[in-house]
Amino acid sequence: MIIVLKPGLSMKDEAAVLKEIKRLGYTPHVMRGVARTVIGAIGDERTHRNLEVLGSWPQVESVTPIQKRYKLVSREAHAKNSTIDVRGQLIGGPKVQVMAGPCSVESEKQLLTTAHAVKKAGATILRGGAFKPRTSPYEFQGLGEKGLKLLAKARKETGMPIITELLSEQQADLVAEYADILQIGTRNAQNFQLLIAAARTGKPVLLKRGLSMKIEEWLLAGEYVLANENPNLMFCERGVRTFETYTRNLLDLSTIPIIKKESHCPIVIDPSQGSGRSDLVAAMCKGAVAMGADALLIEVHPNPAEALSDGAQQVTLEGFGQLMEELRPFIAAAGRE
Amino acid sequence: MIIVLKPGLSMKDEAAVLKEIKRLGYTPHVMRGVARTVIGAIGDERTHRNLEVLGSWPQVESVTPIQKRYKLVSREAHAKNSTIDVRGQLIGGPKVQVMAGPCSVESEKQLLTTAHAVKKAGATILRGGAFKPRTSPYEFQGLGEKGLKLLAKARKETGMPIITELLSEQQADLVAEYADILQIGTRNAQNFQLLIAAARTGKPVLLKRGLSMKIEEWLLAGEYVLANENPNLMFCERGVRTFETYTRNLLDLSTIPIIKKESHCPIVIDPSQGSGRSDLVAAMCKGAVAMGADALLIEVHPNPAEALSDGAQQVTLEGFGQLMEELRPFIAAAGRE
Amino acid sequence: MIIVLKPGLSMKDEAAVLKEIKRLGYTPHVMRGVARTVIGAIGDERTHRNLEVLGSWPQVESVTPIQKRYKLVSREAHAKNSTIDVRGQLIGGPKVQVMAGPCSVESEKQLLTTAHAVKKAGATILRGGAFKPRTSPYEFQGLGEKGLKLLAKARKETGMPIITELLSEQQADLVAEYADILQIGTRNAQNFQLLIAAARTGKPVLLKRGLSMKIEEWLLAGEYVLANENPNLMFCERGVRTFETYTRNLLDLSTIPIIKKESHCPIVIDPSQGSGRSDLVAAMCKGAVAMGADALLIEVHPNPAEALSDGAQQVTLEGFGQLMEELRPFIAAAGRE
Amino acid sequence: MIIVLKPGLSMKDEAAVLKEIKRLGYTPHVMRGVARTVIGAIGDERTHRNLEVLGSWPQVESVTPIQKRYKLVSREAHAKNSTIDVRGQLIGGPKVQVMAGPCSVESEKQLLTTAHAVKKAGATILRGGAFKPRTSPYEFQGLGEKGLKLLAKARKETGMPIITELLSEQQADLVAEYADILQIGTRNAQNFQLLIAAARTGKPVLLKRGLSMKIEEWLLAGEYVLANENPNLMFCERGVRTFETYTRNLLDLSTIPIIKKESHCPIVIDPSQGSGRSDLVAAMCKGAVAMGADALLIEVHPNPAEALSDGAQQVTLEGFGQLMEELRPFIAAAGRE
Repeated sequence: MIIVLKPGLSMKDEAAVLKEIKRLGYTPHVMRGVARTVIGAIGDERTHRNLEVLGSWPQVESVTPIQKRYKLVSREAHAKNSTIDVRGQLIGGPKVQVMAGPCSVESEKQLLTTAHAVKKAGATILRGGAFKPRTSPYEFQGLGEKGLKLLAKARKETGMPIITELLSEQQADLVAEYADILQIGTRNAQNFQLLIAAARTGKPVLLKRGLSMKIEEWLLAGEYVLANENPNLMFCERGVRTFETYTRNLLDLSTIPIIKKESHCPIVIDPSQGSGRSDLVAAMCKGAVAMGADALLIEVHPNPAEALSDGAQQVTLEGFGQLMEELRPFIAAAGRE
Repeated sequence: MIIVLKPGLSMKDEAAVLKEIKRLGYTPHVMRGVARTVIGAIGDERTHRNLEVLGSWPQVESVTPIQKRYKLVSREAHAKNSTIDVRGQLIGGPKVQVMAGPCSVESEKQLLTTAHAVKKAGATILRGGAFKPRTSPYEFQGLGEKGLKLLAKARKETGMPIITELLSEQQADLVAEYADILQIGTRNAQNFQLLIAAARTGKPVLLKRGLSMKIEEWLLAGEYVLANENPNLMFCERGVRTFETYTRNLLDLSTIPIIKKESHCPIVIDPSQGSGRSDLVAAMCKGAVAMGADALLIEVHPNPAEALSDGAQQVTLEGFGQLMEELRPFIAAAGRE
Repeated sequence: MIIVLKPGLSMKDEAAVLKEIKRLGYTPHVMRGVARTVIGAIGDERTHRNLEVLGSWPQVESVTPIQKRYKLVSREAHAKNSTIDVRGQLIGGPKVQVMAGPCSVESEKQLLTTAHAVKKAGATILRGGAFKPRTSPYEFQGLGEKGLKLLAKARKETGMPIITELLSEQQADLVAEYADILQIGTRNAQNFQLLIAAARTGKPVLLKRGLSMKIEEWLLAGEYVLANENPNLMFCERGVRTFETYTRNLLDLSTIPIIKKESHCPIVIDPSQGSGRSDLVAAMCKGAVAMGADALLIEVHPNPAEALSDGAQQVTLEGFGQLMEELRPFIAAAGRE
Repeated sequence: MIIVLKPGLSMKDEAAVLKEIKRLGYTPHVMRGVARTVIGAIGDERTHRNLEVLGSWPQVESVTPIQKRYKLVSREAHAKNSTIDVRGQLIGGPKVQVMAGPCSVESEKQLLTTAHAVKKAGATILRGGAFKPRTSPYEFQGLGEKGLKLLAKARKETGMPIITELLSEQQADLVAEYADILQIGTRNAQNFQLLIAAARTGKPVLLKRGLSMKIEEWLLAGEYVLANENPNLMFCERGVRTFETYTRNLLDLSTIPIIKKESHCPIVIDPSQGSGRSDLVAAMCKGAVAMGADALLIEVHPNPAEALSDGAQQVTLEGFGQLMEELRPFIAAAGRE
């Protein structure tokens, strides 16, 4: 910790701060500068008590932590890129994986039509929500276990592994029984109990970024998964909340180089949630691929106008086919498959 | 819904939009304006399918919903202020309630010392966290059930009802057994499964605003509680996330008149989380009381420098006593007790 | 500056950083901690070159400045509250000043009616825009010099000093000829050329906070005024931009204790711009007064529905009279006049 | 305008609203829905008075404008992409233009070294600041006219047109005498007087997005340029301000498809300001090119550690050469030159 003292302190006031630092288990190191005295407090910030409280002392101007708070997800812990094997599809490897499917599983026909179409167009993993978190209690909440069974059927027919959202600790075992990847949604990104429950199923976990989550908080939420002995974590950027109203969220593509720099875990981009507008999805996908995303998560629906959730951001089957065609030169330019 | 068409549409393109509106169960009402044609789609937006998907049609410029999406929490549903009786303390009535206590329950001595001191200074409800949601898995996570037992003991000794946070659906019954009010934290504000579990215990629920939650989303999250047959809901503003780094959050005091206008439920202000700095708490409390807050939620600790969580935002026992003194004239000016 | 090195650096890499620090005019001070090596660079950050660029070196994890960048506006420079005398009205003293009047000066009748009414209700300074910054080039841009003349006439009739906005360097002398206080609007809060031009007129300057301006940036913008030899600066909070759409802006009342803590200059609150809704103005004013604001800036119009700008946020003459009545007990509770 | 009435209004209250709508020059069109009565007010929102003030009437729940407020910058006004010819370099055409150079012009040697190096690597336009807007009055403010002369010399030596920032209305003629493109910085994005002054010089204008400017506001600020008879406008995204602290700003690459959709003007991406970190610039450029940016604006310095401004975000000469190499396949994939 770096503690900056206010100017013009008496020696007695300064001594009180030094004493407290020692009492809390750190070794103080005083530097007298031109305009301020600064104290470096040496000690393990993760095992000793938190010095941040000194910030409320009248003698102290600011307290700044030095150590990064995340460990297992960091590049320091694991210098190489991690890969996750999902029924033979490698996430984080040379191939850009495409996870596609409807926002919600609505019916057997809707799901199977979509699954076959996206597979034909080049998708490698099938997405679909069985349990849906909805802003209002009066909106469609998903088909539940029936939806999971339909996903399993679609996997059997197409051979594609499936990813679906986990909403509740109490459903962790149920959802893990069917899913190949558990998705943690943006509203649950700091629902730590759910993260722990997901980690303990042993299934790979895709952690969406919270609506206004800082990079450090996202990495720390991921730390909950790795600290619960599940190494198969991927981060998924899906747009953050800003002042802008033109789009639903602002898709932060800079997370691709940032996560690559700070962590060894794969990074997935969700352009559908990211903008909330299907007419922007294609451009977002091109940018994501060019910048090094390991996978894309795209909402596709045979008839978006009839979708029971988030119709405005789902692309049609034809639109998806065309998008996959348009992506090919960018995947090649990025040196990926 | 109001659907604005793009300019210069052919009659055929327009007819397709009208047909779709009818197919989705609405009656279209066409208005030809100076620069745009606008369609009012008459129908119950809560029971028919969502027209918002039309926003992705090439003929359509924008789609705007008209109906408010929340019902039971709204002033329309209940014109008078609701009050909540918590062991004889009325929240939402003439008296400004003060909920005070440590961020986390750390020990019997810490809790009882604080409880007696805050009661003496005028607090009416005891707060304290037994289960703590922490950004990092390596931080203190609370004493758990042992913390709940200490809270019950403090209640017995002081007569003050207790409020404590509920973190997990699976702990809902356990926490409800001890607590008089269940607090839903900011990170769980859209954890709808947890809201339902809390509502079903029958205990009053205090719902904190999410880090970047819009007013409408907050009201809709509250709707989950009332829709699950628990009428005892209070909203708690605790600061939202912005670009500012001077304070931890920006306490949005305008929520007081806004919640009073839109809803019948009480509004509580948490200035400790709101700023993250104990030196700003007193001014925030004065503003909150002047603007009509029904209750305050204040973190108090016998020795903030030794607190196991959020030391920088907790006030001392002396500070709390002084704060209560300073608040009296503002409570009187607001016509409250 | 505090420079944190990456872990596991070779001595050679570390030496290169130390050499660069010395070359840039600082004395490095090495602290070897548990997980990181930290260097304190001693030297005047305001006169030496900026060390922040080290942040892009591969050896360096982070660089953090220590010194506050503002001087003349700070409490350190001037421990007592500054006051500004505007034709006998003292801003920053015991009396809470109320600046009221229309958003735009529209006509002699509109202005004089408003001026007399607000004076009668207790306002002490008259506000009114003659030059208006408008988001669209097709909106009413103000009466210009004619508006200034009407303001001067209203001052003569009522005895109230006047505050009006300065939009352009080239109009600084013209506006200063009429105005008693020059207002710098939110969109020009970092238009440094305009700040310098305003300062050089010698008239008191009211500096509104920019739409998404950090506290430190606001203080530094104020520093441009004081550094150009104009000591009569006041800060004005008028709401910041967030994700919320219910209100136009989020009025940040925590700026009152924060500016009082960091600076000696008076703090003014503008609740009209702050919310953009006249129905929230009264509650905002009560909070502002309770928290210690030195003045209020309130938009008042005889018929808001006919206003040429920002009608929705202007209160009526009757509404203003009632507001002033309601404020009295809070002014008294705050120990002000 | 769409006016939504509150539920349960008396006929008299409703009639008052209708009367006011007519009085303000609109034709009301009443639609009685299931839960609300909605009034469409037909009339030209740009020539009649603003109905938004009705939002503060007790009878009214909300008022929503229908017409887009920008005209000349819109795709409706001009269906094809506009191109801007700058000394033979076409911006908005098939070629992706690269504007590169130092943040500030610091010396003849620094500028010429950079100019020759970036030209050799493939840049087509030279950037460099002579007048610098700085957050603090104590920071380097640029070389002024001397800097402009150095830019002109570099143009003569390399043949590259030059872009430089205009800070002050009073310098418009001076800067336009030297510059081929006038840059309006983010802090002046709504300094409308400066926009008008820039437009009137007749030189092409590059308008950076404000720190927290909505798309609509940005387009309207651009409208000030076109409405002052200067057709040569380009928009430049340089990152917006959010809660994130890892990067200086969040570069919003979705502006590329959005500006292409809403406007005919070219879109330029500034990844240097966008992230504030030179280590993220390459990835940002790849994404921008893949998504269809017309030009890039990149800060390059022979020795970033000695830069007098924004060293942390400037790339080295070597770094720039490598970046240009890495971009080639993405430019080809995007079907550009």
